[in-house]
Amino acid sequence: MAKVGIVGGTGYTGAELLRLLVGHPQAEVGLITSRAEVGQRVADALPMLRGHVDLVFEDPDTAALAACDLVFFATPNGTAMRYAPALLDAGVRVLDLAADFRIKDIATWERWYSMQHAAPALVDEAVYGLPEINRDAIRGARLVANPGCYPTAITLGLLPLLETALIDPTRIIADGKSGVSGAGRRATAALLMAEVGESFKAYSVAGHRHEPEIEETLGYAARERVRLTFVPHLVPMVRGIEATLYAELRGADVDLQQVFARRYAEEPFVDVVPADLALETRSVRGTNLCRIAVTEPQRKGVVVVQSVIDNLVKGAAGQALQNMNLMLGFAETDGLDGVALSP
Amino acid sequence: MAKVGIVGGTGYTGAELLRLLVGHPQAEVGLITSRAEVGQRVADALPMLRGHVDLVFEDPDTAALAACDLVFFATPNGTAMRYAPALLDAGVRVLDLAADFRIKDIATWERWYSMQHAAPALVDEAVYGLPEINRDAIRGARLVANPGCYPTAITLGLLPLLETALIDPTRIIADGKSGVSGAGRRATAALLMAEVGESFKAYSVAGHRHEPEIEETLGYAARERVRLTFVPHLVPMVRGIEATLYAELRGADVDLQQVFARRYAEEPFVDVVPADLALETRSVRGTNLCRIAVTEPQRKGVVVVQSVIDNLVKGAAGQALQNMNLMLGFAETDGLDGVALSP
Amino acid sequence: MAKVGIVGGTGYTGAELLRLLVGHPQAEVGLITSRAEVGQRVADALPMLRGHVDLVFEDPDTAALAACDLVFFATPNGTAMRYAPALLDAGVRVLDLAADFRIKDIATWERWYSMQHAAPALVDEAVYGLPEINRDAIRGARLVANPGCYPTAITLGLLPLLETALIDPTRIIADGKSGVSGAGRRATAALLMAEVGESFKAYSVAGHRHEPEIEETLGYAARERVRLTFVPHLVPMVRGIEATLYAELRGADVDLQQVFARRYAEEPFVDVVPADLALETRSVRGTNLCRIAVTEPQRKGVVVVQSVIDNLVKGAAGQALQNMNLMLGFAETDGLDGVALSP
Amino acid sequence: MAKVGIVGGTGYTGAELLRLLVGHPQAEVGLITSRAEVGQRVADALPMLRGHVDLVFEDPDTAALAACDLVFFATPNGTAMRYAPALLDAGVRVLDLAADFRIKDIATWERWYSMQHAAPALVDEAVYGLPEINRDAIRGARLVANPGCYPTAITLGLLPLLETALIDPTRIIADGKSGVSGAGRRATAALLMAEVGESFKAYSVAGHRHEPEIEETLGYAARERVRLTFVPHLVPMVRGIEATLYAELRGADVDLQQVFARRYAEEPFVDVVPADLALETRSVRGTNLCRIAVTEPQRKGVVVVQSVIDNLVKGAAGQALQNMNLMLGFAETDGLDGVALSP
Repeated sequence: MAKVGIVGGTGYTGAELLRLLVGHPQAEVGLITSRAEVGQRVADALPMLRGHVDLVFEDPDTAALAACDLVFFATPNGTAMRYAPALLDAGVRVLDLAADFRIKDIATWERWYSMQHAAPALVDEAVYGLPEINRDAIRGARLVANPGCYPTAITLGLLPLLETALIDPTRIIADGKSGVSGAGRRATAALLMAEVGESFKAYSVAGHRHEPEIEETLGYAARERVRLTFVPHLVPMVRGIEATLYAELRGADVDLQQVFARRYAEEPFVDVVPADLALETRSVRGTNLCRIAVTEPQRKGVVVVQSVIDNLVKGAAGQALQNMNLMLGFAETDGLDGVALSP
Repeated sequence: MAKVGIVGGTGYTGAELLRLLVGHPQAEVGLITSRAEVGQRVADALPMLRGHVDLVFEDPDTAALAACDLVFFATPNGTAMRYAPALLDAGVRVLDLAADFRIKDIATWERWYSMQHAAPALVDEAVYGLPEINRDAIRGARLVANPGCYPTAITLGLLPLLETALIDPTRIIADGKSGVSGAGRRATAALLMAEVGESFKAYSVAGHRHEPEIEETLGYAARERVRLTFVPHLVPMVRGIEATLYAELRGADVDLQQVFARRYAEEPFVDVVPADLALETRSVRGTNLCRIAVTEPQRKGVVVVQSVIDNLVKGAAGQALQNMNLMLGFAETDGLDGVALSP
Repeated sequence: MAKVGIVGGTGYTGAELLRLLVGHPQAEVGLITSRAEVGQRVADALPMLRGHVDLVFEDPDTAALAACDLVFFATPNGTAMRYAPALLDAGVRVLDLAADFRIKDIATWERWYSMQHAAPALVDEAVYGLPEINRDAIRGARLVANPGCYPTAITLGLLPLLETALIDPTRIIADGKSGVSGAGRRATAALLMAEVGESFKAYSVAGHRHEPEIEETLGYAARERVRLTFVPHLVPMVRGIEATLYAELRGADVDLQQVFARRYAEEPFVDVVPADLALETRSVRGTNLCRIAVTEPQRKGVVVVQSVIDNLVKGAAGQALQNMNLMLGFAETDGLDGVALSP
Repeated sequence: MAKVGIVGGTGYTGAELLRLLVGHPQAEVGLITSRAEVGQRVADALPMLRGHVDLVFEDPDTAALAACDLVFFATPNGTAMRYAPALLDAGVRVLDLAADFRIKDIATWERWYSMQHAAPALVDEAVYGLPEINRDAIRGARLVANPGCYPTAITLGLLPLLETALIDPTRIIADGKSGVSGAGRRATAALLMAEVGESFKAYSVAGHRHEPEIEETLGYAARERVRLTFVPHLVPMVRGIEATLYAELRGADVDLQQVFARRYAEEPFVDVVPADLALETRSVRGTNLCRIAVTEPQRKGVVVVQSVIDNLVKGAAGQALQNMNLMLGFAETDGLDGVALSP
């Protein structure tokens, strides 16, 4: 069994990593850290793990982490970049679920994240952990940047269109909707159920940090500059992301269904569904799947793609496990074969 | 006091008409009909009206309706068009909350609603009941077609841009989100809470009946053909519509905030909010308000408009009351001055 | 117009006071305070009040408050007791929506609220503001303690049974359920939607502060010691309280429906419904009503009472307005005649 | 691999059986029936099963069912009793998830279910499928009656108290709360999200069919007549049941925690948690666990038990799998070892 560490175990992505790793046939959690909860039993903080996990939160100590085969950072932005150099030097693989290594352009990163990068030399080496585009690079990587939740849903929804140059890359609209767990477990009045329950709103309309990440990734796929307008929204539910994507078709009479089906034929975690199937976020709840539907409504020249994921799984912990499986040479689907919880 | 009738009193729009009319200073409900509930006390079917309403559901009888000053049709599509001719002949004003008179092009209407129009001669006379564009015509009208819920939110959000030719009218995206009450009170498994709770989805992606209505109305405002891609979504909440609208700006350096503020300066039920205010559906819950925010994110040449309404009020019963107030010569805000219920 | 002040205007009860006072025919808000938000426009913090309220949050300054006819304290426990003496001396009536003056036994109060009482001399004078038992005393009162939300629902549900000695007062069970707004607007992780959405739980099972308040009030009604077991629960919704009350009947063949109907015949805000009506919290949403149903299931000797209120209205701000109406000599229902928002 | 059949595959319990059986190491679904959906692919009706299940709904044909080792009936009440005799004769084991064989007293059953029993001769043989009391009998059984969802939560919560005669069996209160999936997938207006969302209510207060089932089962445990008052409530969430149970302690100074811990020490699916842990339904979501907390608040002589299950798992399909594992000689936890999905 490989031994993995989790830094930052009390947030939702840390908890979800634990949930998924409980069922993993080849890896087990050797240590989990939480500065705020040192000494507390994990199963006391996260009662759904009672009977499954017998760990205690520890202090994030580099020596202990260095004894792991791989360390997940389920921490706020700006944490992994401080630990990564020493861990990599010690031969440990590092997988950051936050944003520290997602953007290659450091100036762009520093502007959107309002801090100085602590490990700029590693940014180039880091592999963007979206297996559907970087599978081989992830296999050999020491350092992987797990994509954001919106970027995963949106990038997978647009890839087939941009790779085949079927759409105008400068006129893309991404209307994203996320359940509230996407905002994490911070104690903030704005995310109280009494504030966000039974209501719906857009947020960060002026600009969201995931936008440069998406534009950069899609730019590689399109081999030209991508201009995207992205507006995220908050849905009064706990889990799930849906992105509705709009773009102008460059040609007519393309079999969109076939373009998508072909692109993702071999992908274990992307499911292209018939255009007339109602694509609900619950159909992927708890799983690592991205389900996608594509159509050109009313033949107006605008392609509409729907893409749904579970923000905590394919949008965070599940994708991290998929990457870990690749990095450590396990079967890509190990620990990720559950059925969605629906209803 | 004017005496009004409500045909179809057991659905959500009928119930909401009753709620609002209870507090109206100049109009009272003379009769309310429901074929399925004849003889039942209204307050038994709708317990929130206990103590406020002492009516009994009656059979929809033309003679009794003809004794009203105005009759609301809170009925399925295809009902009002069968009653309207006789009632108008009897001197009664008619206000249809369904779709029978919303679209001027009868062939388009018949295609989208899959039935033959029973009163084509009245379609031209009917006034589209959006006071923000048709106030004077509504004042003199005998027959008013109350707009759909999505069309209200979307049209008000785009009007200032199209009237001033600031955007390309052929590249508009309307991403709509609605609470579940928008689907009415039909007994259908697809709308059970166990089906739509804690999940999010798009629906009618291939084409929604409100699309031709919106395109027609916006076309008059733009004085040219409008091409819109509209995708509605279902939000796991009861009330509220949010529409996020995307369009390409034709010029630069326009003060969008001022364009909207000026357009709606005199409108009692449109509130243009600062671009940085989080625009939540709950901020209009229970009220006849449409609140709108406008911005050009990251100066990319794409204008983003957010528009929120309560689908049962400004999107249905409240707008119907606003129209009634105009038709019967009352103050436009009579009965519509409540504060939103938030949280 | 009477001029009232609100101390603590940014919580849910403060906001709800504002919503209700906007429509009050005889009183208007002269000033509103919030230490944290001094200088901010109220309508910026509470967007649902845009267009209705033109106030700015002020510092809680005794001189300014002393210019009001009545001051509401929508503050944390322990605040009103520090302001009340000076305000009362200045001839201002004081209405505390928190717990400072709810319990007559000061030792009991200090044990449950873990602080020393700052104005013990006023506790005796304070009138418990449940008009259904203390209407006349409230009329003449300078200082009123507005009841808690659970105590309102539970006390009104049990009063008719205890006043007539129909039940064993030592074997009462109160199973309470509250929407999340009952917990206020504090930034705490435990109340995030991601924590409490799509889940249900009991809390404070070991003992809740409202229990001694309920036992004391019911004891006066029963004229003997009442022993109650009260367990509150958190419902994944925003507004509403339901209490299901269980007690052992002392005799048989009582017409429970009539006992309740008679007790509340003259009460404007208590509605005794037929036993077979589904009693939903939404039937009172936004209103000052308490609706009650009573029955003896299966003739087993146990009476079951259901009681529903809106925790922010009859459970807080609405009841405060009802008390204000009595204290200032207005009609008791002024400003409180809206219909529930349902659905 | 054992081959099992599912009769009635389109409801929530049928779907949940499929979800759980996908991961079962020893059993596979040989056929699934649905009269209404004959010929439809299961994964089209239940999209969360895309990629996992390649079955087509078939007509419920006795010959095909007779080829199974075990048949689950996830059907309305009154169905299994018509099929069971022939299947048992054919040597097939039968597990009914509905109520046909839950109550031994046939007259009681016929009164509560308003139909005549079609297989009274089998009622005695049928084993009540609660492994925590009938494990050995289930192992040898041909016919098992899977308990109702409320009875599972309530019985497990009261067993340790009744078996040890610690409480008065004639004064028990069970206040149950269920998510909406407990009502099944019937197209009925009363269960629309617009009807039950953002609201809370009791239902069936006059008497619920699960009450005689609970009283009978608890009576065997107590070896005396049990009188229980049970009031179920509907929670605006999809999954989960919480029951708060109240009973009068017969003696003092009992270590309740130890009584429960000892009773369930060997049970794989009952978890007795510390009394001060908030017991949330989400802590068991998707799992076969029943978590229980017990305490005597304020030493008042009343014991309060909280019991939570997932109504579709331990309250239906999961318990059915647990029973199947026992009946077919598999490990009791096979296919049931997942971690709860929380948040």
